Amino acid sequence: MIFRQLFDKETSTYTYLVADDATGDAALVDPVLEHVERDLELVRELGCRLVSVFDTHVHADHVTGAGALRERTKATTHVSVEGGAPCADVEMTHGHVARVGGVEITALATPGHTSGCMSFVVAAEGERLRVLTGDALLVRGCGRTDFQEGDAATLWRSVHERLFVLPDDTLVYPAHDYRGFTVSTVGEEKRLNPRLGARMDLESFVTLMKRLDLPPPGKIHEAVPANRACGQRDRAAPSAPEPGLRERS
Amino acid sequence: MIFRQLFDKETSTYTYLVADDATGDAALVDPVLEHVERDLELVRELGCRLVSVFDTHVHADHVTGAGALRERTKATTHVSVEGGAPCADVEMTHGHVARVGGVEITALATPGHTSGCMSFVVAAEGERLRVLTGDALLVRGCGRTDFQEGDAATLWRSVHERLFVLPDDTLVYPAHDYRGFTVSTVGEEKRLNPRLGARMDLESFVTLMKRLDLPPPGKIHEAVPANRACGQRDRAAPSAPEPGLRERS
Repeated sequence: MIFRQLFDKETSTYTYLVADDATGDAALVDPVLEHVERDLELVRELGCRLVSVFDTHVHADHVTGAGALRERTKATTHVSVEGGAPCADVEMTHGHVARVGGVEITALATPGHTSGCMSFVVAAEGERLRVLTGDALLVRGCGRTDFQEGDAATLWRSVHERLFVLPDDTLVYPAHDYRGFTVSTVGEEKRLNPRLGARMDLESFVTLMKRLDLPPPGKIHEAVPANRACGQRDRAAPSAPEPGLRERS
Repeated sequence: MIFRQLFDKETSTYTYLVADDATGDAALVDPVLEHVERDLELVRELGCRLVSVFDTHVHADHVTGAGALRERTKATTHVSVEGGAPCADVEMTHGHVARVGGVEITALATPGHTSGCMSFVVAAEGERLRVLTGDALLVRGCGRTDFQEGDAATLWRSVHERLFVLPDDTLVYPAHDYRGFTVSTVGEEKRLNPRLGARMDLESFVTLMKRLDLPPPGKIHEAVPANRACGQRDRAAPSAPEPGLRERS
């Protein structure tokens, strides 16, 4: 398996390339529109062919490259059926399994940051298990629960019931990091995550998340409608605030 | 083995944590002064003890955390004997082998970006070979050769004679990336590096590097003297331009 972590400095977003080096089939997870050329060039350089694109959720801070990649390559785009992005070719439910050559990508519903958040377990023969956690679980942190359909109790349950049950040595690859971390493990986050780890129960987590006082994501009114149109801005609905976007004044 | 890549967004610098999870011995490579707390906390959280610090070279764009880490932990600091940083505990020559628990770190002299540039081959049982290439070899690029003791022909020879002779599947971890790449392989760079790969001979490379017209690194007059004092600014010599710093007007 080829596994590559790619970074967008502007929004501190990680994109992942997962490929089977035997068959050449490749997938991109959480591509960023501004980096479509970089990502396609890498796929080509590695002798691969993009067959699938996955978004962990409808992002509020950047526009997905999914639609543009589909137009350029005929790759199949995937997002949760709860994401409100019917433009995707495949609307996934919990347990959906996609195959990229010999690599198996299993979608776990991990809502809480948004209703349609999914994590992807990446499994290939002879490889340590990896989970791409989107904004559900970050290195020593987690995604916000104060906009779109965010709900702290739901996020706590998702992480505990769907991610912390994976083997402790599973590598955790998040959709963002703001402090320079690139990877962690399930065991490490169970033990050390200050929001969701061993010392925090559901009630304390909900209280903590209510007390966070964060500014709204810079691109939310542009990004959410664009991402519901798979990143194709010209096909997006008007970008007025939607009922689901509870923004702080 | 525990292997972690860490990032400094301001200077796009990668720091590496290498540790033996059985013994708990840990090393940091190319630590950045501003992230000493982050890096020490990670070492502690993983149940490790910092025993060694390595710099691939005397950096011109950021100040090393080596001296501060030594003061905080008694770790042994390492830099090339050609680096002009006699403050280091160990001044390495080509072929120097350091052991961090069961992990073997072999220093290869790879001058050209500076005279004292080294690359570190990281080997541990059951792990794919990794090489931390500093500024000698970047993903699809290389370090500059227009300041300090930079010399393009020397860099070309270093990369071809010391790095491109490693097994093709050796993972290449650079000291910087400016486009969001985190890792590559020796085989990939041999084939695809536009400066040093298959299509460039020594002469063309020297011509190309001469024609680059880059602004001087922002922190050069602060960073180089500070790094020659292992990052301990108060012990650094005055920061007037030195003869070795050939800056463009």
